[in-house]
Amino acid sequence: MISLKVQPIKKEYLELAWNRLNNLTKPVGSLGMLEEIAARLVAIYEDPIPEIKDKAIFVFASDHGVVEERVSAYPKEVTAQMVFNFLRGGAGINVLARHAGADVVVVDVGVDYDFGKIEGLVDRKVVYGSRNMTKGPALTRDEALKCIEIGRELVKEYHAKGYNLFGTGDMGIGNTTPSSAIISVITGYPVEEVTGRGTGIDDETYKRKIEAIKRAIDVNKPDPKDPIDVLAKVGGPEIGAIAGVVLGCAELKIPVVVDGFISTAGALIAYALEPTVKDYIFSAHNSAEKGHKVALSYIGLRPILDLNLRLGEGTGAALAMTIIEASLKIYREMATFEEAGVSKGTDHKNV
Amino acid sequence: MISLKVQPIKKEYLELAWNRLNNLTKPVGSLGMLEEIAARLVAIYEDPIPEIKDKAIFVFASDHGVVEERVSAYPKEVTAQMVFNFLRGGAGINVLARHAGADVVVVDVGVDYDFGKIEGLVDRKVVYGSRNMTKGPALTRDEALKCIEIGRELVKEYHAKGYNLFGTGDMGIGNTTPSSAIISVITGYPVEEVTGRGTGIDDETYKRKIEAIKRAIDVNKPDPKDPIDVLAKVGGPEIGAIAGVVLGCAELKIPVVVDGFISTAGALIAYALEPTVKDYIFSAHNSAEKGHKVALSYIGLRPILDLNLRLGEGTGAALAMTIIEASLKIYREMATFEEAGVSKGTDHKNV
Repeated sequence: MISLKVQPIKKEYLELAWNRLNNLTKPVGSLGMLEEIAARLVAIYEDPIPEIKDKAIFVFASDHGVVEERVSAYPKEVTAQMVFNFLRGGAGINVLARHAGADVVVVDVGVDYDFGKIEGLVDRKVVYGSRNMTKGPALTRDEALKCIEIGRELVKEYHAKGYNLFGTGDMGIGNTTPSSAIISVITGYPVEEVTGRGTGIDDETYKRKIEAIKRAIDVNKPDPKDPIDVLAKVGGPEIGAIAGVVLGCAELKIPVVVDGFISTAGALIAYALEPTVKDYIFSAHNSAEKGHKVALSYIGLRPILDLNLRLGEGTGAALAMTIIEASLKIYREMATFEEAGVSKGTDHKNV
Repeated sequence: MISLKVQPIKKEYLELAWNRLNNLTKPVGSLGMLEEIAARLVAIYEDPIPEIKDKAIFVFASDHGVVEERVSAYPKEVTAQMVFNFLRGGAGINVLARHAGADVVVVDVGVDYDFGKIEGLVDRKVVYGSRNMTKGPALTRDEALKCIEIGRELVKEYHAKGYNLFGTGDMGIGNTTPSSAIISVITGYPVEEVTGRGTGIDDETYKRKIEAIKRAIDVNKPDPKDPIDVLAKVGGPEIGAIAGVVLGCAELKIPVVVDGFISTAGALIAYALEPTVKDYIFSAHNSAEKGHKVALSYIGLRPILDLNLRLGEGTGAALAMTIIEASLKIYREMATFEEAGVSKGTDHKNV
């Protein structure tokens, strides 16, 4: 198993943060979720006036053997093609990360394509695509553990370089299929209730997708009490790496912005291994993908945005970073009642 | 009455925008609301590749005679005190506008305080506070029209300076009271269903507030078919100016980001005068204030953010501007399938 040292955030820091927030020139609590985000940042960083420095979004790319079952609207080749698109800066995540002032770190953990040495791509390939999970485990247990380690190591590496806010992202044709499988196995919800239409598949493909997930669970019998077993048997490389990023951030006391459906499946693996990681997670947005809400409420997360996004890549995480930064600016830059000479209302105790 | 020339946005521009959006390297529609925002910007600007230039948020400040009825948790003096806070840059709107790269234009339309000549404050004072609407009209019809003209004129003036995205904001102790009154009269909803707790009032004050609104409507009998009558009798100066900004933007074909509860009451006046203004409005966020949803659904708007904000000042508008800019960047900067050499999926017709 993995040896983890994750500490819960400390109440003292939350109290300290709320004390300041309640003295800023606004009715108590009137900046809603921005205030909650700011308070949690103070507690995560264990710093009374924290600062967000460099930001990065890890986009993990991988292929999936289960696409043989024709569960996606896109051909498998698109995974590698999109990696090239990321490297040239033309994808959604590039645009939104630039907007948020975040760097995009593209990591190959399992693409079924030989990129060779290529500028800008972080090569951590564990497999050339996962295996078809309807016929046996998608990954070996060792491969699954390796994917998690990749995520943890990247957090350490980039944190050492000065980054202190990370987002997760994914690229992998077919990867809503293992994500739904993971969510079904861990939460205990029926497959139908946590399986959506991914990139936009038709009714027939949707039926095939649900059947494939059911078969994969039936064939592999993943143990819901053993998250690594679940990740290996019905998961995928990029999902494991995302779980690793969540674990790594929690270990190093860094906030992590978890994107949508696939990223939340990764966060769910991390949460099943160590529920305390929840303290360090910001859920970026409410994905349009069916099953996302189930995973979020299982962990107990409330997403920041609700824009009907279902692209993945970390696009929601990039957008949410702009809101998280705004929250911290509110905390750092607003004047207090005393500083501004503004009279307090009678509501200042109604937190 | 006001002579208005507002044209609906054109279908040709929407089609042109969707044609490009559907060819960007992502599953069709997978960026949800960002795509809808981008398409509408193309149609509003009537430009196939529009550009957002300078951005400003108008914060209109005013006092309200109805505070005599003890409907607010804050003393009236706070309106002027907050104007000074805005001018020094310490308020929530200053922080969030800086974050969004927008200028804050603070306009006195009715504060019951003599600021004299003061750097940074735009003096358009119409009254020293509105009159107590439980005893008679809050404004004369002429004053109400003057407030609307101020909003329209400011849009013209700033547009001429190169600004092409505006947000609305408000500051006025007691101003949720006239806002609820306006929403009740225009939508026909009972006062109780559109009246909330504003800055955070207790049960007794809440009861007084509802009674005051009912009395104001009873005493003045505003005509729901005559929006200027409603604005004058149970409205307020900053609400009129906000209505004017909405009208001015629609006339000049500029998008306007309408903040929360008070701003939406202003937008409702504009909408009642000329329903076509709806095409030009982006609703910034879903306010925590009761009654906001009623006004939004009456106009037919879906808010961009839902962060439990209830501060006003234009804070939600500033945040929403960052999402609107992100939307346009997606439209402008993402690669098409052809440019990126990415295979199209089979879903590209499922808009």
